[in-house]
Amino acid sequence: MPEIGGSVLTIGIYPNMEKTGITDVVCQVADYLIERGARVLLPQDFATACDRPMLAADRDIMMRQINLGITLGGDGTILHVARELAQAKIPVCGINMGNLGFLTAAELSELQPALDKLLTGDYLVEERMMLVATVLRQGETIFSATALNDVVMTNSASPRLIRLNVYVDEELIAGYPADGFILATSTGATGYSLSAGGPVVSPHVEAMILTPICPHTLYSRALVVSRQETVEVRPQSPEEIVALTIDGKSNFCMIFGDALKVTESPEKARLVRFNDKSYYQTLHRKLRRGEIDATS
Amino acid sequence: MPEIGGSVLTIGIYPNMEKTGITDVVCQVADYLIERGARVLLPQDFATACDRPMLAADRDIMMRQINLGITLGGDGTILHVARELAQAKIPVCGINMGNLGFLTAAELSELQPALDKLLTGDYLVEERMMLVATVLRQGETIFSATALNDVVMTNSASPRLIRLNVYVDEELIAGYPADGFILATSTGATGYSLSAGGPVVSPHVEAMILTPICPHTLYSRALVVSRQETVEVRPQSPEEIVALTIDGKSNFCMIFGDALKVTESPEKARLVRFNDKSYYQTLHRKLRRGEIDATS
Amino acid sequence: MPEIGGSVLTIGIYPNMEKTGITDVVCQVADYLIERGARVLLPQDFATACDRPMLAADRDIMMRQINLGITLGGDGTILHVARELAQAKIPVCGINMGNLGFLTAAELSELQPALDKLLTGDYLVEERMMLVATVLRQGETIFSATALNDVVMTNSASPRLIRLNVYVDEELIAGYPADGFILATSTGATGYSLSAGGPVVSPHVEAMILTPICPHTLYSRALVVSRQETVEVRPQSPEEIVALTIDGKSNFCMIFGDALKVTESPEKARLVRFNDKSYYQTLHRKLRRGEIDATS
Amino acid sequence: MPEIGGSVLTIGIYPNMEKTGITDVVCQVADYLIERGARVLLPQDFATACDRPMLAADRDIMMRQINLGITLGGDGTILHVARELAQAKIPVCGINMGNLGFLTAAELSELQPALDKLLTGDYLVEERMMLVATVLRQGETIFSATALNDVVMTNSASPRLIRLNVYVDEELIAGYPADGFILATSTGATGYSLSAGGPVVSPHVEAMILTPICPHTLYSRALVVSRQETVEVRPQSPEEIVALTIDGKSNFCMIFGDALKVTESPEKARLVRFNDKSYYQTLHRKLRRGEIDATS
Repeated sequence: MPEIGGSVLTIGIYPNMEKTGITDVVCQVADYLIERGARVLLPQDFATACDRPMLAADRDIMMRQINLGITLGGDGTILHVARELAQAKIPVCGINMGNLGFLTAAELSELQPALDKLLTGDYLVEERMMLVATVLRQGETIFSATALNDVVMTNSASPRLIRLNVYVDEELIAGYPADGFILATSTGATGYSLSAGGPVVSPHVEAMILTPICPHTLYSRALVVSRQETVEVRPQSPEEIVALTIDGKSNFCMIFGDALKVTESPEKARLVRFNDKSYYQTLHRKLRRGEIDATS
Repeated sequence: MPEIGGSVLTIGIYPNMEKTGITDVVCQVADYLIERGARVLLPQDFATACDRPMLAADRDIMMRQINLGITLGGDGTILHVARELAQAKIPVCGINMGNLGFLTAAELSELQPALDKLLTGDYLVEERMMLVATVLRQGETIFSATALNDVVMTNSASPRLIRLNVYVDEELIAGYPADGFILATSTGATGYSLSAGGPVVSPHVEAMILTPICPHTLYSRALVVSRQETVEVRPQSPEEIVALTIDGKSNFCMIFGDALKVTESPEKARLVRFNDKSYYQTLHRKLRRGEIDATS
Repeated sequence: MPEIGGSVLTIGIYPNMEKTGITDVVCQVADYLIERGARVLLPQDFATACDRPMLAADRDIMMRQINLGITLGGDGTILHVARELAQAKIPVCGINMGNLGFLTAAELSELQPALDKLLTGDYLVEERMMLVATVLRQGETIFSATALNDVVMTNSASPRLIRLNVYVDEELIAGYPADGFILATSTGATGYSLSAGGPVVSPHVEAMILTPICPHTLYSRALVVSRQETVEVRPQSPEEIVALTIDGKSNFCMIFGDALKVTESPEKARLVRFNDKSYYQTLHRKLRRGEIDATS
Repeated sequence: MPEIGGSVLTIGIYPNMEKTGITDVVCQVADYLIERGARVLLPQDFATACDRPMLAADRDIMMRQINLGITLGGDGTILHVARELAQAKIPVCGINMGNLGFLTAAELSELQPALDKLLTGDYLVEERMMLVATVLRQGETIFSATALNDVVMTNSASPRLIRLNVYVDEELIAGYPADGFILATSTGATGYSLSAGGPVVSPHVEAMILTPICPHTLYSRALVVSRQETVEVRPQSPEEIVALTIDGKSNFCMIFGDALKVTESPEKARLVRFNDKSYYQTLHRKLRRGEIDATS
């Protein structure tokens, strides 16, 4: 019976139900793993859709019972599951069913060898830094969320400027009107931040990338700050509402007087990686195609 | 009595009522011109606000009677009036009451010499190319507008990507997901287009500047096309609504299947310019300050 | 007998002798054209190399006798020949033997139909604006050259900064230390200028693109000026020697006190184009591949 | 008597002799420190020039005897001294006599309070990561140097392209023709790398910034890699000679077959910093002025 750290290998499967043929893949993965002695759990709604009711579990319960997650989908699927499972320090293995991905560990065509490696423990776990975004209103925390890719501030009414002041460790570093502002991890650097002119950043660099979106000043540049530093961004115009988007999901509206504080998260996302595939291989291929990642 | 092309000099004053001290300036300008024999007209609502009811005129009537416009405000004020008066080939002189401007002819501090030059005809008129933006739905024109600065396409729901195909003279030149797309004149090149990475373009170049906003491809660049060429942009996703913003005013919502066609306008904006101030002087000063123009 | 404008079609063949199999192609082209009644001339050295001594002619004599040029090679080959034949208003047809080209009219694989079209006059001639670069020292012209692609200023000692002042119509528009400065035509816009951050410019736009190379200021941008405007660039440091490179060939060294003046050339390059291939098709394909053209 | 770590405070003064009034400043600093009980040493040639022969010492001996360095000059002066003293773990305090600097601790106008703080130990020492650049030819190290700012590869013949392959941890990440390639520390990020399009990087981020100079591909971006990673760059063309410039000084010529290897240096530069001046303050002010640092 496959084990992990002394306990029976219990795997949660998280499929992206919008992919064609997904129920077949889910059943195939579940059966393969169960036959080889692993326990398998599926979130309630997916279990129903895949006609495997006895595998169904509540997402919260899953998080307490599984010791490995598998996502079936693209970078967007693993992004959200990795963030969720980070709380319980559970690693996730992404099986890619979309475009070339940065976060997934194997292509669907490599499914069986990938599952074998998961069963025998033949894989690496890569920790990825995450961000905690907190909104303060009159000194009180009124919103808090964790991001694995990025925290984006834009005007809730498109395409209007917002005026922002940006501080690092309480030092004002920039104040400008812009379309918006991106705070990304190195994981998120190849996403929206890249399309706004930010640099590519190795996942081994634990840092925050601050990239203004179409700043209305000529002297603005992307800024990479260390994980020990605290970034604060404050909207400057009473009449503007600033939409906060965390990992591609619209999450909160900030008003004048609010402050967004972004720091390193104490939690890490844990990504399964197999020995034969590197970040730089993927990067090289994606850049050659001119692709920018929009995972979320 | 001052004349212009054989008829009595009739001047329309177009103030930006939000500027502090504006009613005093309006009265001062009106009195100065009337004393020197010019006729003066004021749009109805401004005439009331400035307590000069006998100068009041309907905007349409003004356009038929005046042979010169004066704006009191910034680049935004003259932008909209120049576009309006372009239909009747009437030149506009911008008296600047804001930041350093590209379109205004004189600063408020130079008001009196500027008015003297207007009264004696001691000025140049610079013609500026404009764009006509037309939206076609199933072959029929359902929207049409003229832009002096730019035509901007964005997702009506911020900050979401839109997928666009761009054609020049019916040749596909680019297809990408992006935050949006800007079609600017050389007049608009120093505005939004510049903050999205477009080039500065001399007002003597009659061309269209096509600048993608945060394109999610790495190979996109700003493209300058000639005024003889026709640009067409077609939204590619059925579920997205594309907001059209003309010279900074939100004007229309496009849906999948619509095509935006942009060509040179047969009308030209006519800007008064005095001999002692050049575009490049202003450009040099504005770039040194790192300013990007947000006129509208 | 094929004619052009009433006289016998006389074609000059200009091969790039470094291409593999080039002598075969030259003979094939020459024989095909001669069999169909055209006169063919080859520059002396190529005629010898291709063993067709009776086709040999001096380049100057060729320019007086031919009414059409054919280049066999890549964009670099046609670039230099088009510039040379521009003096005599002779069009050039580029047969491409290299990477995807902007200037060539047909691929080597389309050779025969291309030659047939040339024989029957079934083609368009596209005029391309060129630049005249003149260096003035103490008021006297000490150097002058014509560029179809670009005029590039760099420090003759790599990789050192040069300090330059840039003027448009005698107005200072920028002064900065930089690695160098590029003045390109729209033909040259897809070359070095693009890699230094300049825009793509339709060949229908007759303008100059001014692109600083790694300027040591943050507010610098590419600037597109009209063909009526005169650009002047003056090195600012007594100790630096500025190398001038015209269409990729190092041509002249400027010293402190010299001024480079660049204006529109009265001559136009004349490129043969067939109906089925457009600039935008090529642009789209080249951008998708991420290629920047280095023709010269 | 002022001490540092139990031994008498012995200060080496390193002036930039090209600054006007420098000998006066050197004497003033030396006298002030000696009066307060510190030992002072001056490099041989500066001691002669400043007429303080009894303070003269060989640079090597100085490095063994001093426990603090003071530079009088700009960022360029402190850059080279900090790198030199890093071998002996000696901190350096830069007194700025030039433009606004990133590395200097105080302005000349703040000289006396700065010296008082140095005498009483009232300062912080900031460690800065450095790079080791090694050139390998046929497996043997034929050149090695340490950089505090950057390692730059360019064609020794300006302005010609070089073809380079770039590897991170032996993985090919890019291969392109370019004007050159920059490997910078976060200290060097505000220098040449910034003018070539690289990001600003907090000095607290210990990373390497890889920035291509005018790459002839559209998909190239700046890349930030971690200090654990090893970067290798290999020239690809037999006929090109690649000049290596370390911290602004031309140091070595690479040929085809050579490999440049860049890793984190085991040595750190040690910069004195006073409490009242932060990197971000300086950054904000320099960006507002549009300045890019060319320290070396």
